[in-house]
Amino acid sequence: MRIALLGGTGDIGEGLALRWAYHTDHEVIIGSRDPDKARAKADEYETELSSRGLDVKVNGFTNAMAADRATVVVLAVPPYHVSDTIEAVSDSLSEDDVLVTPATGIKREEDGFHYHPPKAGSVTALVADAVPDNVPVVGAFHNLAAGRLADLDADLGIDTLLVADDPDAKETVRLLAEGIEGLRALDGGGLANAAEIEALTPLLINIAQHNDGLHDLGVRFR
Amino acid sequence: MRIALLGGTGDIGEGLALRWAYHTDHEVIIGSRDPDKARAKADEYETELSSRGLDVKVNGFTNAMAADRATVVVLAVPPYHVSDTIEAVSDSLSEDDVLVTPATGIKREEDGFHYHPPKAGSVTALVADAVPDNVPVVGAFHNLAAGRLADLDADLGIDTLLVADDPDAKETVRLLAEGIEGLRALDGGGLANAAEIEALTPLLINIAQHNDGLHDLGVRFR
Repeated sequence: MRIALLGGTGDIGEGLALRWAYHTDHEVIIGSRDPDKARAKADEYETELSSRGLDVKVNGFTNAMAADRATVVVLAVPPYHVSDTIEAVSDSLSEDDVLVTPATGIKREEDGFHYHPPKAGSVTALVADAVPDNVPVVGAFHNLAAGRLADLDADLGIDTLLVADDPDAKETVRLLAEGIEGLRALDGGGLANAAEIEALTPLLINIAQHNDGLHDLGVRFR
Repeated sequence: MRIALLGGTGDIGEGLALRWAYHTDHEVIIGSRDPDKARAKADEYETELSSRGLDVKVNGFTNAMAADRATVVVLAVPPYHVSDTIEAVSDSLSEDDVLVTPATGIKREEDGFHYHPPKAGSVTALVADAVPDNVPVVGAFHNLAAGRLADLDADLGIDTLLVADDPDAKETVRLLAEGIEGLRALDGGGLANAAEIEALTPLLINIAQHNDGLHDLGVRFR
């Protein structure tokens, strides 16, 4: 399968790109507003993978061109770029694609990191509202620490939660997620359940800040 | 240490009472609005513990009398009884006590369980606002599945998160929590960080509902 990581030059994009390229046979392509930046990062990822004996091609494009070439499109951009990125790629999305959204609304405040959802109720819901009606949306990878994901030597042993209203799209992303070694995908229900998943991300940061020896935290449900 | 479980006849109260009585040397007392009900439940807990070869006394009282006798007071009541229970025991609380609140605001809606905090921002904050100013409040045990806690044969291997603005009170509760076999207490920061912890509880229920083989879920941060 061909996976486009829009904002694939950013930290969560880097982690997902490297993991999919390293652990699976899926073809990863990198999208960015700036195609030169996308290509430069794609080269970096190739070099990193090559240093581990893996000879794969990673291509970089504008976000729209990356989305156009892929079946699964991951919106790996910060929440404040969600709307303009969707607008930029909207014509490249069809009902045969799956749009994956990992963004969450976090604010750093004096007393800690807190969840601040947009008016739609969650960033996932905002994305679902913004894409063309026939494009299936899956919320996933909200709670993964980017640095740990991008470090291919780091064990995961953690869970990611999927929310979607389209069962086929959810199953596609479940298989992609479980292709990453050490990552277990759990079903979080419909898109309406996204807020509680997104709220877990600021909690993970707060815990890492207050407990020595815990950093780049993930979660396992048991 | 003497621990009063207000609402100790309910499910989370039962779990904490049995675990502390079974795993530690702390004295557990049960509070209820109805002292007869408190005593009847206390007898049940004694019988359960006795069936496991543990001969301990568990006493039952009205909530106010239980709070009066204890150093650590756990408000193990549903969120809609938080305010009236605090009012009933307010005169029994002093600056030398610690009030522990595990309640969280959950609503079951058509599309899943969701977090609905009170206006204070979290149930933990509501409790902190309601108690006399000098009484230290610790949020803890928000995310424990009551049935699993009450089943002394069930392994835990999970975490609980503590929030408090008073470090000594937090340390007292940390030691109590870690006295329970298989439970790890992590520092969640100040009371202002409670909402994201409380929001984890409806998420756990949603996950249990959507994934075969997962029930009475807890969480481990790793």
